[in-house]
Amino acid sequence: MNQNLFKGIVSYPITPFDQQEKVDLRLFKILVERLVVTGSHAIAPLGSTGVLPYLTDAEKESITLATVEQVAGRIPVLAGVSNLTTERTVHHARFAEKAGADAVMIIPMSYWKLTEDEIFRHYQTVADAINIPVMAYNNPATGGIDMSPSLLIRLLQIPNVTMIKESTGDVQRMHQLYQAFGKDVAFYNGSNPLALAAFTAGATGWCTAASNLIPDLTKALYEAVCQNNLPEAQRLYYQQAELLKFIVEKGLPRTIKAGLHLMGIDAGYLRNPLQPLSEKEIATLRTILFKTINKID
Amino acid sequence: MNQNLFKGIVSYPITPFDQQEKVDLRLFKILVERLVVTGSHAIAPLGSTGVLPYLTDAEKESITLATVEQVAGRIPVLAGVSNLTTERTVHHARFAEKAGADAVMIIPMSYWKLTEDEIFRHYQTVADAINIPVMAYNNPATGGIDMSPSLLIRLLQIPNVTMIKESTGDVQRMHQLYQAFGKDVAFYNGSNPLALAAFTAGATGWCTAASNLIPDLTKALYEAVCQNNLPEAQRLYYQQAELLKFIVEKGLPRTIKAGLHLMGIDAGYLRNPLQPLSEKEIATLRTILFKTINKID
Amino acid sequence: MNQNLFKGIVSYPITPFDQQEKVDLRLFKILVERLVVTGSHAIAPLGSTGVLPYLTDAEKESITLATVEQVAGRIPVLAGVSNLTTERTVHHARFAEKAGADAVMIIPMSYWKLTEDEIFRHYQTVADAINIPVMAYNNPATGGIDMSPSLLIRLLQIPNVTMIKESTGDVQRMHQLYQAFGKDVAFYNGSNPLALAAFTAGATGWCTAASNLIPDLTKALYEAVCQNNLPEAQRLYYQQAELLKFIVEKGLPRTIKAGLHLMGIDAGYLRNPLQPLSEKEIATLRTILFKTINKID
Amino acid sequence: MNQNLFKGIVSYPITPFDQQEKVDLRLFKILVERLVVTGSHAIAPLGSTGVLPYLTDAEKESITLATVEQVAGRIPVLAGVSNLTTERTVHHARFAEKAGADAVMIIPMSYWKLTEDEIFRHYQTVADAINIPVMAYNNPATGGIDMSPSLLIRLLQIPNVTMIKESTGDVQRMHQLYQAFGKDVAFYNGSNPLALAAFTAGATGWCTAASNLIPDLTKALYEAVCQNNLPEAQRLYYQQAELLKFIVEKGLPRTIKAGLHLMGIDAGYLRNPLQPLSEKEIATLRTILFKTINKID
Repeated sequence: MNQNLFKGIVSYPITPFDQQEKVDLRLFKILVERLVVTGSHAIAPLGSTGVLPYLTDAEKESITLATVEQVAGRIPVLAGVSNLTTERTVHHARFAEKAGADAVMIIPMSYWKLTEDEIFRHYQTVADAINIPVMAYNNPATGGIDMSPSLLIRLLQIPNVTMIKESTGDVQRMHQLYQAFGKDVAFYNGSNPLALAAFTAGATGWCTAASNLIPDLTKALYEAVCQNNLPEAQRLYYQQAELLKFIVEKGLPRTIKAGLHLMGIDAGYLRNPLQPLSEKEIATLRTILFKTINKID
Repeated sequence: MNQNLFKGIVSYPITPFDQQEKVDLRLFKILVERLVVTGSHAIAPLGSTGVLPYLTDAEKESITLATVEQVAGRIPVLAGVSNLTTERTVHHARFAEKAGADAVMIIPMSYWKLTEDEIFRHYQTVADAINIPVMAYNNPATGGIDMSPSLLIRLLQIPNVTMIKESTGDVQRMHQLYQAFGKDVAFYNGSNPLALAAFTAGATGWCTAASNLIPDLTKALYEAVCQNNLPEAQRLYYQQAELLKFIVEKGLPRTIKAGLHLMGIDAGYLRNPLQPLSEKEIATLRTILFKTINKID
Repeated sequence: MNQNLFKGIVSYPITPFDQQEKVDLRLFKILVERLVVTGSHAIAPLGSTGVLPYLTDAEKESITLATVEQVAGRIPVLAGVSNLTTERTVHHARFAEKAGADAVMIIPMSYWKLTEDEIFRHYQTVADAINIPVMAYNNPATGGIDMSPSLLIRLLQIPNVTMIKESTGDVQRMHQLYQAFGKDVAFYNGSNPLALAAFTAGATGWCTAASNLIPDLTKALYEAVCQNNLPEAQRLYYQQAELLKFIVEKGLPRTIKAGLHLMGIDAGYLRNPLQPLSEKEIATLRTILFKTINKID
Repeated sequence: MNQNLFKGIVSYPITPFDQQEKVDLRLFKILVERLVVTGSHAIAPLGSTGVLPYLTDAEKESITLATVEQVAGRIPVLAGVSNLTTERTVHHARFAEKAGADAVMIIPMSYWKLTEDEIFRHYQTVADAINIPVMAYNNPATGGIDMSPSLLIRLLQIPNVTMIKESTGDVQRMHQLYQAFGKDVAFYNGSNPLALAAFTAGATGWCTAASNLIPDLTKALYEAVCQNNLPEAQRLYYQQAELLKFIVEKGLPRTIKAGLHLMGIDAGYLRNPLQPLSEKEIATLRTILFKTINKID
């Protein structure tokens, strides 16, 4: 298993719906293609941005298949397979492997808070059922469970759990992960406003939906860090910081869809109960988005 | 619509599984019957205790049908129909009405945090699709969304949203609801450790899984309050307080199943990732449970 | 030592200042007299309401002396002696005892968070230096340290720490205290909006500044509970609930001063940085205050 | 006024006491001298590390005088003058100016939570009374008040409030400050574990007590950032990260004193209620400290 498959900009496509709230696979493929050709280093369908939990089993499977087909090996694919039950998570993990995904991402979704042992056993059962790497994903704001750095470190005992995605927005969590493993384990940042701090803390990649809107800027930030150009990384970060903050605060599915539309790109509809941004929010997004793109320092 | 159908002890059955993690409907009916004959004033399948979010659509439907059939009109039935998408919530609400449930309970489940307008629209769409009352259920600890008293009050503008269940454990929320409506709107307590404070704040009922284990004590507490016997209510509350705290802290599906087993009652298995209590936790539960039941003042 | 000296309404006077921000002792005595004659069961100078931490050592001593002198044994006096350093706390506790106070109240004030051992040692040192009872006071919102129920229970090992005042506003804390000791240890409620819930949970008294504004209602609520008249207690609580919430939210020194002024009673000035309520807040207070006082059910 | 006086490592000396809990000025001067000669870029007596709130007025004044005298103009002096009342804050700010301090640092200390207008007025009154710059210091964990980035930005309207020290440990606060002002306003990091993230976010300086223990490493980190050497900055940060975390978690006065002692440097006693680290904590500190100092990469 090559755990270094994923680095740089790991892009999260949205899942577009038609007016009857059916998944629009044709449009999905167009949006995936755009992420590939604008320079993403990897693609991650069925994440939070892709509204995974709002989809049926059949819809999830069709999206995994569509992604692998469209990407066609140009960049690696990280498929989201999270589910409340262990049985369904195993099912989707196996499906993703068979479909040709390079790795799977799993967030422990909660209704009842899970104990650390339940979480560990959940990951172990799923990881044992497949032969591709697993990225353990911590995002209490969406999943409802906060995995401490020590639990994340424990999960890495499972042979094919090789990557960690941290989305709490607390850079000190990343410091703890890096202190435990150094460069031996890849950790990824899933909090957009933390992009600069995470890279300087040693993150291997940035899991982001921002690359749907500003692919050049997200990639340039990563490259500036790789080139050890801190002033340039700082400048690039602050150029996009306001937009990163806005899209997180208002919700990625709503804001990415609205932002694509503002740039003249069809992004379909949302599924209820998620509603489009208000007119006022769209106006704010327009201002921020075009200021970000056109900023000359 | 009679919004006073529900009062007193509203009991939440667990959903038992067999060893292969299939829903055990035969056992479910036995547990429901037990709740009816031990004096529950109403029954609420497919709540948090009933692990609603971990079930398939077909399983949910079979449990609603089984409850209505087993209860056979002896006490009212409040069916849980919550779902992440509005479309599935409407589907299950209609199913429950058709199956003969007296009302439905809805918690706004989150992955993406919903705006107040999205929550309102979600409730309105579902409520408009049925002709039975809706209980709006607030429980951020499980559902991930915290509906403020002012939003709950706004939801009551929808004609058949007539009941509120508050499970934050903050009695001041209940005070705000009561101040807004007095006895015109029924509010229910869903936080077991708050049972005494909620009744004295004016709660119409107590939504609880504790009645699976201590039906006499839960009912006696309600009756002491009805009889304006505060010292007796206080004594009864403190008799069961330690148990109420324990079952909430360790999770209702796990603790109710374990407690029933300790009393010699078959309660089946859990569905993964939920795991049974540890041996040590079971020993603690045994001590607390039998001390609670046998306490002589 | 009689630990049952304090029960019912324990009133907290404000500390009035003149226009030059000097303590106005003459006016202070008038306000104390008013609390005594309107039926307070005890009086507690130098609490949060009395802006203890904003006073010099000499000012604190003059207020303790003035209280004891004015009250003249009609009701017991509970003097606040809290200080950041142990040495100054001992000093003021000894002063209060010598001046004739019946007990002292101590909140562990923090700048640096104290460990549980530091807090215990602090209380022990002070308690050992005096021969009157100590009330341990928990109020993280002002003092910055949250003493858990288990630490509070540990403090009761110190012989003359005999009373606990809980101001977190979480009724479950009170349940834990009552479960540990029953009626053997007096616990007091310091959260005004929790007045009803605390009394029904078994609180011995209500430490409040509300009695400066609505002495009849605060006392009547206590008496209804003593008479086991829950419906009347509930009615009386809801009559004053909005006012109790407002005075806590806007700060007791500011709101009690403003409320007294609205009733035609001179209450002096505040000491900077504390500022009077805004005109708009005063108008809101006027509406709530007179609605509370004049409500006919 | 030169607002760029302060940059790099701003060192916070502890305030040593003798066995009778009296301030040991002779020892204080020795510790100050050590900070100067080991390369601090500025010195800040009477901060949190210096246990400002636990000192009498006279003690504070003697420490300000001793610092200015000992430093003798070699590096700039930033004197802490915070107090609960505005009057005492003005007093100490004037004293510091007269004594020769280059600037004052003010944290809005709370007992009663202050409104934003009260905080603004407090700063304005103090700033108007002096002719040297003011650093506004935000540290809710000690001071009890959390000043939002927008309030901090508002404070910068006051002419001689020219510097901000942010100690929440949230790098996104720093991003907001930098976005508002860029390099026109100096912001300082007061959260030790955030040292790397803050410098990369654009912080002008690092307000730290760590330089009492590891002066070379703190300075080297700053210099690596100045030289745009991100890999070296990252390496240096991780070399000291565990120590930075430990001293914050266990409290700076306790840990700096213990650490100095471990290195054979007399650091005196603490003032009650603050107690020395336990034997076990000292052993942990020893391990971390010497591992940090002696680490060879």
